[in-house]
Order: sequence, then C-alpha cells, then structure tokens
Amino acid sequence: MPQVLPPGIPSDLFHARADAIAAAAKELAALGWTPATSSNFSMRVDDAHAAITISGRDKGHLDRNDIMLIDLDGYAVGTDARPSAETALHTQVYRRLPEMQVVLHTHSRTQSVASRLFAKQGVVHLEGWELQKAITGFHTHESVLEIPVFPNTQHMPELVARVDAWLDTGKPLHAYLIDGHGIYTWGRDMAETRRHLEALEFLLACELDLRRLSA
Amino acid sequence: MPQVLPPGIPSDLFHARADAIAAAAKELAALGWTPATSSNFSMRVDDAHAAITISGRDKGHLDRNDIMLIDLDGYAVGTDARPSAETALHTQVYRRLPEMQVVLHTHSRTQSVASRLFAKQGVVHLEGWELQKAITGFHTHESVLEIPVFPNTQHMPELVARVDAWLDTGKPLHAYLIDGHGIYTWGRDMAETRRHLEALEFLLACELDLRRLSA
Amino acid sequence: MPQVLPPGIPSDLFHARADAIAAAAKELAALGWTPATSSNFSMRVDDAHAAITISGRDKGHLDRNDIMLIDLDGYAVGTDARPSAETALHTQVYRRLPEMQVVLHTHSRTQSVASRLFAKQGVVHLEGWELQKAITGFHTHESVLEIPVFPNTQHMPELVARVDAWLDTGKPLHAYLIDGHGIYTWGRDMAETRRHLEALEFLLACELDLRRLSA
Amino acid sequence: MPQVLPPGIPSDLFHARADAIAAAAKELAALGWTPATSSNFSMRVDDAHAAITISGRDKGHLDRNDIMLIDLDGYAVGTDARPSAETALHTQVYRRLPEMQVVLHTHSRTQSVASRLFAKQGVVHLEGWELQKAITGFHTHESVLEIPVFPNTQHMPELVARVDAWLDTGKPLHAYLIDGHGIYTWGRDMAETRRHLEALEFLLACELDLRRLSA
Repeated sequence: MPQVLPPGIPSDLFHARADAIAAAAKELAALGWTPATSSNFSMRVDDAHAAITISGRDKGHLDRNDIMLIDLDGYAVGTDARPSAETALHTQVYRRLPEMQVVLHTHSRTQSVASRLFAKQGVVHLEGWELQKAITGFHTHESVLEIPVFPNTQHMPELVARVDAWLDTGKPLHAYLIDGHGIYTWGRDMAETRRHLEALEFLLACELDLRRLSA
Repeated sequence: MPQVLPPGIPSDLFHARADAIAAAAKELAALGWTPATSSNFSMRVDDAHAAITISGRDKGHLDRNDIMLIDLDGYAVGTDARPSAETALHTQVYRRLPEMQVVLHTHSRTQSVASRLFAKQGVVHLEGWELQKAITGFHTHESVLEIPVFPNTQHMPELVARVDAWLDTGKPLHAYLIDGHGIYTWGRDMAETRRHLEALEFLLACELDLRRLSA
Repeated sequence: MPQVLPPGIPSDLFHARADAIAAAAKELAALGWTPATSSNFSMRVDDAHAAITISGRDKGHLDRNDIMLIDLDGYAVGTDARPSAETALHTQVYRRLPEMQVVLHTHSRTQSVASRLFAKQGVVHLEGWELQKAITGFHTHESVLEIPVFPNTQHMPELVARVDAWLDTGKPLHAYLIDGHGIYTWGRDMAETRRHLEALEFLLACELDLRRLSA
Repeated sequence: MPQVLPPGIPSDLFHARADAIAAAAKELAALGWTPATSSNFSMRVDDAHAAITISGRDKGHLDRNDIMLIDLDGYAVGTDARPSAETALHTQVYRRLPEMQVVLHTHSRTQSVASRLFAKQGVVHLEGWELQKAITGFHTHESVLEIPVFPNTQHMPELVARVDAWLDTGKPLHAYLIDGHGIYTWGRDMAETRRHLEALEFLLACELDLRRLSA
C-alpha cells in the first residue's frame, strides 16, 4: 500500500523529507555506521507529523518508498507499514524539543564500543577537543560536553523515561548513547544534525584512542 | 571446458545463482574480506546441487565462468573445473540444514585475529550487543550468541566432523570460525546471509576493541 | 556579495588559487581529515594577499565561491565574507616564510589524538622513519624531525606568539600541532605541501601504533 | 627526453610492462601503501633489462612516461631519467632469482610499524595463518614463513649485501622488510606478486593486532 498523505501535508513536502532522509542514509551507510539493516532516521514534517524509515530496510539503498509518515505519538498515518521499533525515541525529540527538525540514530563500531565502555559511569565527558565547537552552542574547547549512556532495553518506554528524566533536570542534551547499541542526535536541520553526528563519532573515536594509548 | 548443466537444471536458474555469487563476492572483496584469492561462496541450486566458486580466482573480479556446479557430495558436475578446497564445508550445510540456501566463507583481518584469540576457549560468546538481533531468531541483546572456533586443518573431513559434532548436540549454529583462518555463515537467502556476515564481522570487531580497551 | 578583486590581481590568478584550494579540500575531506566543517586552507596570491577558505563551509564541497581574498594582516579584501577564525596562523606563515605559497590545516583523528598525547612534552620527535625524507630538506631516516605541540586557545594572538617564539629561535619549523585540535603545515607549492601533510599524517599514525604495541 | 629503446626490445613489450606497472601502482596507491611519493615498482623486460618507476613521481598517477628502462646493473638505458634510489634492490632480485619477473616495494603503515617492532629480532615469524598458503610453495598453515627485517641505510650496497647474505645461506626468501621503511616482495608474474604483497600486508597486520590483544 503506497503512502496516503492527510489533507494538510502536500506531497512535495513529504517527498522532500523522504528524499533528504534517503540521501543521508546512503551516505551514513557508506561510512559503515548502519550495519546489518540497523539504524533509523527521521525528519519533522509539521507540528504533528514526522517522516521516518520503515523497519528493517537496508539503509544503504533507501528510496522514497522506504520512508513513512507517523504522528508524534508514533502511530503510522496513511500507511500500513511498520515504523522503526525505536520510533518513540524520535517522536520524543519532536515533542520535547520544538526547534528540532531531524533525528539521526546510527550504530557505528565506535559508538557501540564507547557505549559499552562508558556504560558503568553512565556518561561520556568530552573536554579539551577543538571539535566540540561543532556542537551548536559550544564556542570553546574548554567547555564540557556530556553524552549520557542509557542502559539498553527492548522496552522503549523505559528509554523514553530515562531521556525524559535527563531533560527534566534542565541539563543540556545534544545526543545520547544506548549501551551496546548506538547513538541518537538531532538538530534544527539536516546539515546541523549531520555535523553533530560527524563530530560526535570523531570525538568518541578520539577518546577511545586516547584510552588505548594512555593505558 | 564450459559448464554443462544436467537436464533438470535450467540455465536461467544456474546463471541467476552464479550472478548472485559473483555480485556478493565483488562487494565482499571491496571490503577487504577476501585477501589474496582466499574465501569461497556458494548457493544451493536444488535438492541435490549447489553452485560454488572455482578454486583460486580473485574474488573481486568473478563472473559467471568462475562459478561451477557441484553435487552435495562435493563432486564437480558437468565441468572439469576444481571446486574450492573447502567445498565439503559448504555441502555439509546444504545436507544438514535443508532451509539454508547460501553459504559465505570470508577471511577478514578481524575474523582471522578473533579466531586466533578465542581458539583456546573454543568459542566466542557474544552478549549485550543490540546487533545480535540481526541474526535470525534473536530478538534481544540479552540473548547469548555462541560462535564456535574450530582448530584449523588442511584435512577437510576433520572439520566436517567437528561441525557435525556441534550440530549433533542440538545447540544452535549460525556460524563458526576456524583458527587462523576465517568465518563460515549461512542463511535462507542472500540478503539474510549477508546480514549475518555483516553483523558477525561487526560484533567480532567490537569484542576485539573492547578487549583492547579493557586491558 | 561576490568577491571583488583589487586592480593588481587578475581574476585568472585568483581563480586558479581558489580552484586549487577547492580541489585539495575535496581530497582531504574524502580522507576524513576535515570532520564537521573543521580545517582551513590557503594559498598566497602575491606579496600582499592570500586566498583562504570562508569560515564554516563543508570542506568536501567547496567551490570558487567558498574562497575569499585577504591581505597578510588577515583582513577581508573586496568581500564581506568572514575568513576562517584561524586566519592569523595562515598569514603569519606568508609573512615570516617568504618562500611559502600554501598553508594546509587539517584535523584528522590521528592528528587530534597525537596532539593530546604529546601535549605535555610539547613536541613530537620523529626519528628512524624513511618517510621523514618526504619533508623538504631531509635526506636520511637518521635525521630528527621535531613537530612542536602548542596549547590550544580560542585567542589567536597567543598561538601566533608561540609560533613566532619558535621561529625566533632559528630552529627549523615544517609543521606544528595544536593540542586537541589539528596540524598546520606549508610548502613552496601545493604538491610539496600535500606531500608534507601526507607524510606527517603517516608518521604520526606510525608513532601512535608503535606506542600501542610497545606498551 | 623520451625513452629510446635498444634494438632488441620491441616497444610493445616495454609499453606492456610500463602499463602493468602503472596500473598496479594506481591500485596500491589507492590502498594508501605508497604515501608521499614513496615506493617503487619494476618488471623484468628480458634477461638484461627491467622497467622501473622514475624517482619521485606520485604513485597514484603514473603513466607510461613515468617508467624507464634500466639494465640489471641499475643503469638507465636510452633515457636520462633517474631511476628510483633503491634500484639496486630490484636488479638484485632479477640477477639472483632468474624466475622472478616482478618486484614490488611498498610502504604501508602496517609494514613500517612491523619493521620497527621486529627490527631487534631481525625477523618476523609467521605461523598458524591459513593465508600463508597464498605464498607460492606454502601448502599448510603449519609451515613457518620467515620475513627478515634488515636495518635501514641510505647506502644501497649495504642492503644488497644483507640480502645476498641471506640468499647465500640457501634459506627461502619471499620478501623482506627494511626497518622504519617498507617491504620488498616479488613473483613470477604480476598476479603472483600482488597476491604475495596482499597476503604479507594481511599477515603483518594480523600479527600486530594479536600483539595488541595479547599484551
């Protein structure tokens, strides 16, 4: 069944989002950050809807038909396709952070290994790296960038509650890791979100390298 | 001598298998997982035959003529080409696991190093990784995925016997490593088998990274 | 506002420089050495001007319009674009080393990690590597190549002063690292500068590998 | 001055050799094994001549004009181009090992680091790897493959003497490393030599990984 759009969403708008997601997915897959059909990607469509990858597709070969519409409770809209199992983590960002337009979840080796390594302390502290300035709002390497590491679970409401709890403290949140799994990050447009993801991958890889070398 | 097909095997069927093997081999070679003409690949053709790579060819540049027909005892059928030395490990999968349609054997650096490192304990235990869910039948990171590591030998019947012994215990078997050598994995179609191989490479690489970092 | 060139600078000359910078940036970005819009590149145009990358652009997709003219005090000439924040480090090279025509600043993982690791001792000593001969003036692996590591700061005059202090001692300077940041190197043409950068990346990576293995 | 060929060498023959060298160089450069214009490559032309890369060219962009003719004493023939500084190591192979048709010298990070690490013991022992079978004459992983590591020097006759001394003992020699430098290997045709080089790079990388993990 092809995607049927509700009256308020022009097909041009949905297709632009779907194409942008497919293009980003292709580039991230080429980097090896979406192994074995893992990872999922979304973009806000309007105040009440987002476009998100359909579950289980090979992220290196997405096209428009691999992207579906959901509402911000995570329900499919105008399609019987099944959204990614982790849809609730995407819609949470759109509900709680109204400025955010894009959520990218990848699953690189660096992200997976860092999440295991820092799981016990529950957070990665990044400090002293020039590239922290690639995260919106950071203007110096002397700042501290904290990336929480949440325990993995197959039960999404638990993860949603942990993210909510962090946000409720008022501490900044630019991204989080899930133990043994991958990273979630977001931004106000695709370029900013890609820049965040690229910087975080780089910073985590540098931290792992430093650990190996300082042992 | 070109491949001559027996009456029951249409050339379209054999060519489809040969082309699928060549295409997969090309992509796996590009990843560096088939160094120096190592590795071999096969697909089931029917209940009694499989298509398999001819011995010694460069896996990055295979075409239809580099694939030959064998029966499930590993004998060449309709050709005087020599099948891969490890043909018996492919036919064993087709004989013992009737649902399986594809066997991929690669030889990446990660696979070779992991096989050496875990040879003494005879098995790699994978646990706590979200990507275990890429293996058919696994639905949570809380499961345990066991990959046996068998001693290497140039005498194939010894390896066949070890694989048989594992299968005879009734324990699940999705893949195995051979010490100092590489990995064998399989699936019900090429996409599933590629997903298995990609996930196993990723998981072994993550395990090696964690070891380096936890030392 | 498009770039307006002063009377003494033919547009062919400026465009040749801009195109050479964009081409180099594209290749360096493909190597992953310019993550998240970091890095900047320049070429001398004449005794009083240089062409330099405009701040914040994605280094993998530069074209002529992403390059601007500056004078050797770092002021924009004929444009209201903003040059890279680190422009003063480029113009310093052109002012103090009259033979130099190209300055490349990249930000690879190896460069960032090496800068952190060697920050305390303030210098990387490279010795015993055949590839030291790729640096102009080096003719044997028995020479010693010193790459200083300066503390990072968001205040450019501090960095300029540190580089000046090194040059004032009369010690050779072919490149320097900034802690948690990246590398600066230069040369008499693009080919020499690229050769320097490639050799330094290689040598730093080898040093890090040796450390990991000798621990 | 273009290459002038002596009467006994048809231009077709020389061009075939030059093209084969340029094609191999391009692929090896793409792997990052020829950093900063390092590395050199040759092929035997007849009993008294070889084709070899001209000194200092970027190995990723060679064409026919970057290859020159030499005699087996290493002198230029029919050209005033300067052959690689290490020409004597190539001609030594052609003089002492009459079956050999190709010599490849590369300079990968793995080769450089392994050479430093094993310099003191003077040899790398490779044992227990299935991929040893990629070296001509090896039929089992239970064999031992010895790769000597010679001290580096800018004085070629010293290196030639060390290689001669090894060969004079009658021990097999398939390749050697030079400390802080790179590897030399050879074969009876380009495919065999490429297979040797690819297998040696893989085996050295595996040995380094095992060391890191067994520390």
